[in-house]
Amino acid sequence: MFETLTAEIIAIGSELLAPDRTDTNSLWLTEQLNRLGIEVKLKTVVGDDDARLEETIKDATRRSKVVITTGGLGPTEDDITRKVTARALGRRLLLNEDLLAEIRQRFQNFGVAMPERNSRQAMVIEDAEVLPNPNGTAPGMFIDHKGTAIVLFPGPPREMKPMFENHVASRLASRAGSQKVVRRMLRVAGMGESAVDEKIAPIYSQYENPQTTILFNQSEIEIHLTARGRTEADAEALLDRLSEQIEERLGISVFAFAGETMEQVVGLKLSVGGYTLAVAESCTGGLLAQRLTDVPGSSKYFIEGVVTYSNDAKMRALGVEPILFLEHGAVSAAVAEAMAEGIRNRAETDFGLAITGIAGPGGGTEEKPVGLVYIAIASESGTEHRKLNLPGDRHLVRWRASQAALDLLRRRLI
Amino acid sequence: MFETLTAEIIAIGSELLAPDRTDTNSLWLTEQLNRLGIEVKLKTVVGDDDARLEETIKDATRRSKVVITTGGLGPTEDDITRKVTARALGRRLLLNEDLLAEIRQRFQNFGVAMPERNSRQAMVIEDAEVLPNPNGTAPGMFIDHKGTAIVLFPGPPREMKPMFENHVASRLASRAGSQKVVRRMLRVAGMGESAVDEKIAPIYSQYENPQTTILFNQSEIEIHLTARGRTEADAEALLDRLSEQIEERLGISVFAFAGETMEQVVGLKLSVGGYTLAVAESCTGGLLAQRLTDVPGSSKYFIEGVVTYSNDAKMRALGVEPILFLEHGAVSAAVAEAMAEGIRNRAETDFGLAITGIAGPGGGTEEKPVGLVYIAIASESGTEHRKLNLPGDRHLVRWRASQAALDLLRRRLI
Repeated sequence: MFETLTAEIIAIGSELLAPDRTDTNSLWLTEQLNRLGIEVKLKTVVGDDDARLEETIKDATRRSKVVITTGGLGPTEDDITRKVTARALGRRLLLNEDLLAEIRQRFQNFGVAMPERNSRQAMVIEDAEVLPNPNGTAPGMFIDHKGTAIVLFPGPPREMKPMFENHVASRLASRAGSQKVVRRMLRVAGMGESAVDEKIAPIYSQYENPQTTILFNQSEIEIHLTARGRTEADAEALLDRLSEQIEERLGISVFAFAGETMEQVVGLKLSVGGYTLAVAESCTGGLLAQRLTDVPGSSKYFIEGVVTYSNDAKMRALGVEPILFLEHGAVSAAVAEAMAEGIRNRAETDFGLAITGIAGPGGGTEEKPVGLVYIAIASESGTEHRKLNLPGDRHLVRWRASQAALDLLRRRLI
Repeated sequence: MFETLTAEIIAIGSELLAPDRTDTNSLWLTEQLNRLGIEVKLKTVVGDDDARLEETIKDATRRSKVVITTGGLGPTEDDITRKVTARALGRRLLLNEDLLAEIRQRFQNFGVAMPERNSRQAMVIEDAEVLPNPNGTAPGMFIDHKGTAIVLFPGPPREMKPMFENHVASRLASRAGSQKVVRRMLRVAGMGESAVDEKIAPIYSQYENPQTTILFNQSEIEIHLTARGRTEADAEALLDRLSEQIEERLGISVFAFAGETMEQVVGLKLSVGGYTLAVAESCTGGLLAQRLTDVPGSSKYFIEGVVTYSNDAKMRALGVEPILFLEHGAVSAAVAEAMAEGIRNRAETDFGLAITGIAGPGGGTEEKPVGLVYIAIASESGTEHRKLNLPGDRHLVRWRASQAALDLLRRRLI
């Protein structure tokens, strides 16, 4: 068994610290490294700041077997990666005459003389291998430093990616051995994060491989599993074993086994069963219909939706009896059930799904607070409702109400 | 003149190191910090790895005056931020009985007993101030450590953002001194990115302060302006001058001057004018209704919505004449106008707004390709339509169609 190689990725450049910039290179690199069985343990974005960069490189080199930097290899004053990396590793920076000639030639090919400052790009860290960059003037470097592989790439993705693929992937693969990393995401509805953890911690804590992370995302719990194996099939087998145990423990609360969304899962079940659906919404204001129709091919089973905010609209469009508003109010089990039956009758579908509630921020009372939501489902086998008290702001209450309604339908379809 | 405060942001959680995850919290936090005149010098994403996290916190605390962490405050075993930060700072971790009682109460309010592991979330670092989290069970912490402000936030943006705004922004502002950074975002609809840039580049390129960035986001152009001044008023004045010139040049294509969304702008106009609206959607599947009703108070003007995917539903719910489908097809100007009139008549509103089109990926033909969308508006003054050929995938076509429909209504309301 090989030990898993650990990697850190350092993105260099002050422009990457602006509030509207994300470092997408590290995402691509993480995917490539994972594929080789190398685990990314830490990512840094650092500006053109000598001291912080030097410390970052020193820390990374001491802790990890693979350190990859992107950016800061250009010809200008604020391109500090070469000199700071040399200093961090205690190596000299030497002029490479061959490289200088090449860079000069590149400029000549475009009919211009090399600006003097580009000679900076011919400075190479002592004992580094130069990685050719056919798409730019900044060459990369590969350094073996006390058993750690340090790779310096230029920042532009179209320069960095082919350099990784052509010159670095195979070098790292031979260090990584044959281990592969495979991920899987399970999704859970209708349970809290702590409740899920209490149930499955006794299972997943038995395994160091796969690793398990539980995440709370809007009204879903995500269970992220990461497995390592000599082959992808080995890793998948580890995932299969653990996810089967988790499924057995959580039962039908697990609704997705490969990261599918609730609307995709429900859509597939409707589609496979040949069922049709219509929905009536009050507080979710179209969100339920929008999520259902976000799935390509949903026109096969989604027939009609109505958004009835006012009592008038609920009576007119869904045939809800006026007496129900008087006796129970618009936010009530009776109205939710009448809405579900009303839209099912009108659209002549197998299922009618309805939501009525108070999304906030206004409109709540002591008796009927913000977050009170009734969902109902009508079908040939009868009509039923659920009463929910949903926490969160308007956006979350709406999202959670739509999720609960979809989950009610999903459970009916099992 | 004060020296500029430097900050580092640390995002914590192994799931953030997956190849498909970006740390968006740090972008939002960077924007907020910049606004206070605080410069972000380094960002880290670190997994649930005690040793690396401890080192990261130690380094950041030594180098920077503001250190912000997000994530890892949950109730589970892999939520390590509390204990590792305490260790990095050489402080104890103490049980806060008041906090424990509060967390217990939160669970009771939802009718469930607190799982034992949630008591972890009542552990507080010695001498830290507790930051209340009304949207979740994980409280934050504010620690003054040898002159450096260390702030621990939970990971979910909906919990973190209000905690920053209500409890942290003012604390940091008082440390940050006098240079203020103020940003403003203008939004443009109905023009391309290059067209906008060609028109306004001669204006904004005259200024180094404010700085201007143009961003293309779904179907909107965002114009980001950033100004620096000794006071916020100074910086705001610079923004006023530039944004007035931009508005003069772009006219009514600028729909928002303070980052408002299209649905907020339209909602305000409907509300102020005392108008009512109903919508009928085909390819957008409820997105138009959902966006309109996402605005609190929209029940005042939004009366009804229908999602009519099939021709049957369009006839039944909207009274579209069968002959129109035969002569023009479901995706046509005639059907769009009939839908707008149909929903307006049925809901008895001032305006009827309708969308019919082909969102893809399937369903396109040579004559009627994916992205062909008709939008129509009906009111007392008559009915009109627009034909659109929208680029992008299903998700983008739907979003752009809803945006164009809202913009059509906005222009009618001016």
